[in-house]
Amino acid sequence: MASVTENPPPAVKNPAKVEDKPAGEGSAESSESKGASKKQAKKDAMKAEKLRRKQEEASAAAAAAASKETEADPLAGNYGDVPMEELQSKAISGRIWIEVGLLDSKLANGTVLIRGVAQTMRGVGKKMAFLVVRQFTATVQCVLTTDELVSTQMVKYATSLSRESIVDVEGVVTVPTEPIKGTTQQVEIQVRKLYCINRAVPNLPINIEDAARSEEEIKEAEKTGEKLVRVNQDTRLNNRVLDLRTPANQAIFRLQCSVENIFRDFLRSEDFVGIHTPKLIAGASEGGASVFKLDYKGQPACLAQSPQLYKQMVICAGFGRVFEVGPVFRAEDSYTHRHLCEFVGLDVEMEIKEHYFEVLDIVDRLFVTMFDYLNDKCKKLLDAINRQFPFKPLKYLRKTLRLTFEEGVKMLKEAGVEVDPFGDLNTEAERQLGRLVLEKYETEFYILHRYPLAVRPFYTMPCPDNPLYSNSFDVFIRGEEIISGAQRVNIADLLTSRAEACGIDVSTISAYVNSFRYGACPHGGFGVGLERVVMLFCGLSNIRQTSLFPRDPQRLVP
Amino acid sequence: MASVTENPPPAVKNPAKVEDKPAGEGSAESSESKGASKKQAKKDAMKAEKLRRKQEEASAAAAAAASKETEADPLAGNYGDVPMEELQSKAISGRIWIEVGLLDSKLANGTVLIRGVAQTMRGVGKKMAFLVVRQFTATVQCVLTTDELVSTQMVKYATSLSRESIVDVEGVVTVPTEPIKGTTQQVEIQVRKLYCINRAVPNLPINIEDAARSEEEIKEAEKTGEKLVRVNQDTRLNNRVLDLRTPANQAIFRLQCSVENIFRDFLRSEDFVGIHTPKLIAGASEGGASVFKLDYKGQPACLAQSPQLYKQMVICAGFGRVFEVGPVFRAEDSYTHRHLCEFVGLDVEMEIKEHYFEVLDIVDRLFVTMFDYLNDKCKKLLDAINRQFPFKPLKYLRKTLRLTFEEGVKMLKEAGVEVDPFGDLNTEAERQLGRLVLEKYETEFYILHRYPLAVRPFYTMPCPDNPLYSNSFDVFIRGEEIISGAQRVNIADLLTSRAEACGIDVSTISAYVNSFRYGACPHGGFGVGLERVVMLFCGLSNIRQTSLFPRDPQRLVP
Repeated sequence: MASVTENPPPAVKNPAKVEDKPAGEGSAESSESKGASKKQAKKDAMKAEKLRRKQEEASAAAAAAASKETEADPLAGNYGDVPMEELQSKAISGRIWIEVGLLDSKLANGTVLIRGVAQTMRGVGKKMAFLVVRQFTATVQCVLTTDELVSTQMVKYATSLSRESIVDVEGVVTVPTEPIKGTTQQVEIQVRKLYCINRAVPNLPINIEDAARSEEEIKEAEKTGEKLVRVNQDTRLNNRVLDLRTPANQAIFRLQCSVENIFRDFLRSEDFVGIHTPKLIAGASEGGASVFKLDYKGQPACLAQSPQLYKQMVICAGFGRVFEVGPVFRAEDSYTHRHLCEFVGLDVEMEIKEHYFEVLDIVDRLFVTMFDYLNDKCKKLLDAINRQFPFKPLKYLRKTLRLTFEEGVKMLKEAGVEVDPFGDLNTEAERQLGRLVLEKYETEFYILHRYPLAVRPFYTMPCPDNPLYSNSFDVFIRGEEIISGAQRVNIADLLTSRAEACGIDVSTISAYVNSFRYGACPHGGFGVGLERVVMLFCGLSNIRQTSLFPRDPQRLVP
Repeated sequence: MASVTENPPPAVKNPAKVEDKPAGEGSAESSESKGASKKQAKKDAMKAEKLRRKQEEASAAAAAAASKETEADPLAGNYGDVPMEELQSKAISGRIWIEVGLLDSKLANGTVLIRGVAQTMRGVGKKMAFLVVRQFTATVQCVLTTDELVSTQMVKYATSLSRESIVDVEGVVTVPTEPIKGTTQQVEIQVRKLYCINRAVPNLPINIEDAARSEEEIKEAEKTGEKLVRVNQDTRLNNRVLDLRTPANQAIFRLQCSVENIFRDFLRSEDFVGIHTPKLIAGASEGGASVFKLDYKGQPACLAQSPQLYKQMVICAGFGRVFEVGPVFRAEDSYTHRHLCEFVGLDVEMEIKEHYFEVLDIVDRLFVTMFDYLNDKCKKLLDAINRQFPFKPLKYLRKTLRLTFEEGVKMLKEAGVEVDPFGDLNTEAERQLGRLVLEKYETEFYILHRYPLAVRPFYTMPCPDNPLYSNSFDVFIRGEEIISGAQRVNIADLLTSRAEACGIDVSTISAYVNSFRYGACPHGGFGVGLERVVMLFCGLSNIRQTSLFPRDPQRLVP
């Protein structure tokens, strides 16, 4: 695994000494206002730009000064800033870089080359420096000690790097006698060469260390009178590119990718076909006010609130079983911890032979498979999330519990919570039911089915024995809804009358309704929010944590 | 594999005799106007609706008459229309349906149950009928012959089914002595029970047989004076749910799913992380006029023309290698065979150590892997497409050819085609170069790189040795561009000046530009259009054939 540099290193220029001023509380502790006003944002941007220019001027001056020092160093070729032209695909050296996460004691005494982020740098006198280099979720300590290959100027250069700059480090792997606390990798690199590939500005809007701190840590410190920086959510989201560099965030989005992969792989193994339906549609999607409208070449159009109508049409087109992963747009004015204006929908639609339980069987096996996989194969990621946002593993059964809506209402009633037996459950009732289910059945993942028809969309199939109920279901994780599904009406005339009864202008969805006139199988399906699955599986408190660049009614940038 | 019905079949009602009038030329041969006017569409819809109601009334009357006949039949329980309440998830019988595509001689003499589409029905006197049942791309012949279990009324019922109705057929598998020409499966089913699950309207807007016909077949028939129905593209797209039922279309979208799967699986195996970036964005995406604008809660917003800026920001956030599959929106007024207003983008972005050839290596291996897989594992799908749309297998090399733009210009010049050495190639020049490359290198898949900087987007990295060229590339299949990619500028100040030079208001993309101030690795990537890959791999002539519900400047429905 160890790789040795055989070719000459790139030319270097202007090693610069820069004061590394970590971001203070001031910059990170912006007020938790619900989205700063546009004017304020502009003002802030101008202020930041001004500061930036000032810092860069200072930095350039310092670099010029340092450059002079370096000129006098016969070992100057071993370190320095790589000039831009060297990074413009000038040549292929044949050198091999090893991932930081792969560094271990098996590589002891080997020479390795890594590229990563200079996370922290600390000088000890003039003859020694420590540099922690990060790549993805892994970190390693790099040590510079003056000797025949490492000059004092080189040590100074290392300590002068600005945090988050990209560096190439070449050196020899050593295994320290005592465990290393501050890094993930339990080896050190004795640095031989150190080049800066890309410099970060000296003052970052947020420090990764601050952003990576757990609430617990902050509170522990408070007890001893120490005030650690707490980076609030707006500051994080305003500087998302930095915020995403924390180990927890690196893990969250890798886990999210795994959730999607398991979703797809499971469904592929069950003969589902992956499809893509249009997001630009005529009419009003599934009705309701919460659609984003736009002008489509002179025609009124809107963004799909879900692939619902189109995935059903693909079933009518004879594809048997389909799934889609794609963006879903909701112009709702929701400011909750679990609503976004744009999220990733995981959608499934399938022919059923006799019963919507065939859909529930897929839900059941898909999610048990998913949870098992996440727990078994994604331990490192879960650990990284857990360190900043502690959570207990999700409790779920091998065979997912199915309760009818009536049973749920009864459980709530017995616990003293009165709910409308033909109304919907509100968020609080859902939470309470979740607690009751956990107590009684020892699971935090369950299916509630046979919802009242009145609270479900027009395309939901009524129950055969009682038209006040429907062949529909919701699925809950930790007391919160993550999946909605149902058997659909596959008879055009019933669909028309149901749409009319729900106040929908049928002429706007005629292409959809007519699809059921050409021979349409009984079918059903469900939709899941990818961000919610990750949020609730990991017990996170806000859906903005599981969206790379979240969109809510007040956030469109970055 | 054979499954036997053990439980009683569902109750049946009102077997209806309906005249099966196949759609004539009139309905299918609508003029190839570039999208009918809205008024005309409404008129057509009203006319169709009127016709439908008339037909359904006639159908109901016929059904009532037929119902009387059936009442007198002691074998009436073996056939008939399944009443709606039976299909509302009333009960689970435990019966097992087998897929039509799995029916073969190993099942001979076994009783099987299938669900599929009644594609064609043909009576032979009063005592015999043939019913071809289709599921996905497979078809099987079902035979009814009067005996102690099959009444003459049942035979009549079978011939009275409307085409494309959904049916359950139970019967015994037999192997005929001669090969069966009209179906994919080489066995027959001797029908014992026949139930209609969902009736299609008697007059379909297009016949699947007509829609599935190859141009060759039509021309062959013309030679003998026979005029077969040719379903034009607008008629197909107006009735896409029916059009998609042809074997070629069933295969095209299954193949498309495979292309996406290979794309994802290959990249996952190379440590790429799948991401989802927002489609609702502030500003003007990458600039230019071809964006869909909308109002986002009072803020001006637009739909992402590509995940370009965001996928780069995710690289700045330290994810190393990422990919995204998602919709891409272009409000261009393009009416060509290869442009859509909404398509599925396959996007890749990755850190590079030294050279954009690292990106080309991924392109090379990814696509060779993909083509190999499609040719090896998707033969049946390719055959189904080939039957309607004949094409020659794509010629590609084990190691993908790389030519510089300069070399391409030189080849064209030597062939007598003068092009601007610092301009872009137009579609015709690209085609010609494709022909020259095929002739000289025997490949229809190649990479052209080092494009003139002036014709590439502002974020493209200039070449180190000549700033008139750039570290960029396009990839071609059969003379048409399918991939665009490059090394990107990862230095904020250069990015700013390049954007300004390209006339872009930098303040609209400040979040993007600033991402490069916090330490940004050299990186590059590329984007591919999913629909184009499938279209060009299969030598199809129009991109609308590879989009489930295509969107062009005049088509927003269905």
